[in-house]
Amino acid sequence: MLFEKLGAVKAFAFDVDGVLTNGEVLVTEAGDQLRKFHIRDGYALQLAVKKGYPIVVITGAQSLGVQRRLEGLGIRDIYLGIRDKMTVFNAWLSRNQIQAAEVLYVGDDIPDLAVMRCVGIPACPADAAEEIKAIASYISPKLGGCGAVRDVIEKVMKVQQTWQDDVIVQSV
Amino acid sequence: MLFEKLGAVKAFAFDVDGVLTNGEVLVTEAGDQLRKFHIRDGYALQLAVKKGYPIVVITGAQSLGVQRRLEGLGIRDIYLGIRDKMTVFNAWLSRNQIQAAEVLYVGDDIPDLAVMRCVGIPACPADAAEEIKAIASYISPKLGGCGAVRDVIEKVMKVQQTWQDDVIVQSV
Amino acid sequence: MLFEKLGAVKAFAFDVDGVLTNGEVLVTEAGDQLRKFHIRDGYALQLAVKKGYPIVVITGAQSLGVQRRLEGLGIRDIYLGIRDKMTVFNAWLSRNQIQAAEVLYVGDDIPDLAVMRCVGIPACPADAAEEIKAIASYISPKLGGCGAVRDVIEKVMKVQQTWQDDVIVQSV
Amino acid sequence: MLFEKLGAVKAFAFDVDGVLTNGEVLVTEAGDQLRKFHIRDGYALQLAVKKGYPIVVITGAQSLGVQRRLEGLGIRDIYLGIRDKMTVFNAWLSRNQIQAAEVLYVGDDIPDLAVMRCVGIPACPADAAEEIKAIASYISPKLGGCGAVRDVIEKVMKVQQTWQDDVIVQSV
Repeated sequence: MLFEKLGAVKAFAFDVDGVLTNGEVLVTEAGDQLRKFHIRDGYALQLAVKKGYPIVVITGAQSLGVQRRLEGLGIRDIYLGIRDKMTVFNAWLSRNQIQAAEVLYVGDDIPDLAVMRCVGIPACPADAAEEIKAIASYISPKLGGCGAVRDVIEKVMKVQQTWQDDVIVQSV
Repeated sequence: MLFEKLGAVKAFAFDVDGVLTNGEVLVTEAGDQLRKFHIRDGYALQLAVKKGYPIVVITGAQSLGVQRRLEGLGIRDIYLGIRDKMTVFNAWLSRNQIQAAEVLYVGDDIPDLAVMRCVGIPACPADAAEEIKAIASYISPKLGGCGAVRDVIEKVMKVQQTWQDDVIVQSV
Repeated sequence: MLFEKLGAVKAFAFDVDGVLTNGEVLVTEAGDQLRKFHIRDGYALQLAVKKGYPIVVITGAQSLGVQRRLEGLGIRDIYLGIRDKMTVFNAWLSRNQIQAAEVLYVGDDIPDLAVMRCVGIPACPADAAEEIKAIASYISPKLGGCGAVRDVIEKVMKVQQTWQDDVIVQSV
Repeated sequence: MLFEKLGAVKAFAFDVDGVLTNGEVLVTEAGDQLRKFHIRDGYALQLAVKKGYPIVVITGAQSLGVQRRLEGLGIRDIYLGIRDKMTVFNAWLSRNQIQAAEVLYVGDDIPDLAVMRCVGIPACPADAAEEIKAIASYISPKLGGCGAVRDVIEKVMKVQQTWQDDVIVQSV
């Protein structure tokens, strides 16, 4: 059942804090906020981009550093400082002619609830809020910022047999 | 009993280091101190502010970054660099016409002892000092800087049926 | 036996990396190294200073940030960038007329071995190197940078009945 | 069998992210990436350099901070921003007249696969990707950035009886 659903995923959507990061923000004296991303999550994201999966990131965070990190992985649809994720998400769907049922969304907290209720596969890290776990089709055994994003992308791409980095295949 | 007490909470008071953070300070070569806050704690704090709960933060830390982070969540009563928390706390109570018995205070170490002995619900993270755990009415299963503040605010607001983000309710 | 030894401690000596920190250094693009200290370790250190215990910190690290953090806690004898800890330690002992047998030293790795073999109580965090654990009189259940220093100072001061912050006593 | 192989190791090769670090990158607003290294890993690396083991680091990361940290430990052969690790590794082998069979390589993710398939001892941290664990001759019980590199270097050098810091030997 979950296996079939993973096979039907055509696009990925992600929250940032608690999903692509572990939820911590490191605050400097100047008030800047630093966030931690994981390299192995990044490997999966850049591979998914390379293989043509549409990816959108929608976050309440207002951070140039987040934008730069994600752009460096090849992600183009990045929405920062968003209060109402549903409106942004729906506009993205129609602009890219994607159905909500084809999207795997990874969120971790209450601002993600509305979008997660409408997508094909709502997923979350092991340490998401209880309200989120209660409605998730898939709860990753991995934590936010520490493999949860890698885990869901890898699972989808292995089911769809796209988890192959061509550069690696050549060099074997 | 605890349930009844949670229902009586009218205001929140928090220490910073070890409560809103995990107790670590990251020291730069210039001597600046960076601290880690958690986004899911922040969600609970901004919601409590929005719903009208008086919130005060009293800390020995002298940090502009802490002030900016907390102001960004809507908290106005922030006392930094405080050695004698009791005096500051009592002044805040009388200025806001709040009784100590109506306050839930979260602390983690000896400088919090005196205030915790006089409030209605003294609470602490799972990793607080032994002296603090010994007098706490509620020991959160969560760690400081990693969900303890979210846990206590969420528990109070659920008992009082205020744990509803109206924006979310509209979009459901 | 350990209890008696703790009662005889007159001074403390500490390594930095892996003892006062968790052993991690965060490296910036500019090559600066940031280190994490724990506030509850800091509380114990400043209290020990206040109660008159001689404290020395000897480290291979060359970091202005470390010096500023420790000076902020009231520690004056700070030796940075030291390769040969034994010579520095012996000079400190004679200058302060302290016997090695009266010192509790906390170290975590091979550069600490020589000094630890000559002090009264060689101690270490739970995650110290095996060579260090093998010769330690006391292995703290706490990790480096996360309570090990608090644990040893608190144990000594409770045995010696000096673990009382006078400010707190007044306000009770 | 592993013991014999460790005895035959003449050189070390390392990936950076997830091996010398825990895989996290801390992103600043300016887009800089900060990485965490461990002091006890660093001790092993500088000792291996001092005892004459050839060491090469090959990473996809493009970071001046990484280069400075590694140079500070005495490592000279540092290749940053590398996509095709195999070509760089082979060039390093022939330039230094080392056989792949004599090399212990520590990697954690798919970009390390090709090189790991050709070396004498492919090794990895406890938290490496499944594909890497599947082909590793040795899986360290330690995590990346938290002792895995120390563990493999120490094991090799103890088998080869080179795990002795001469400075320490003199002072005993």
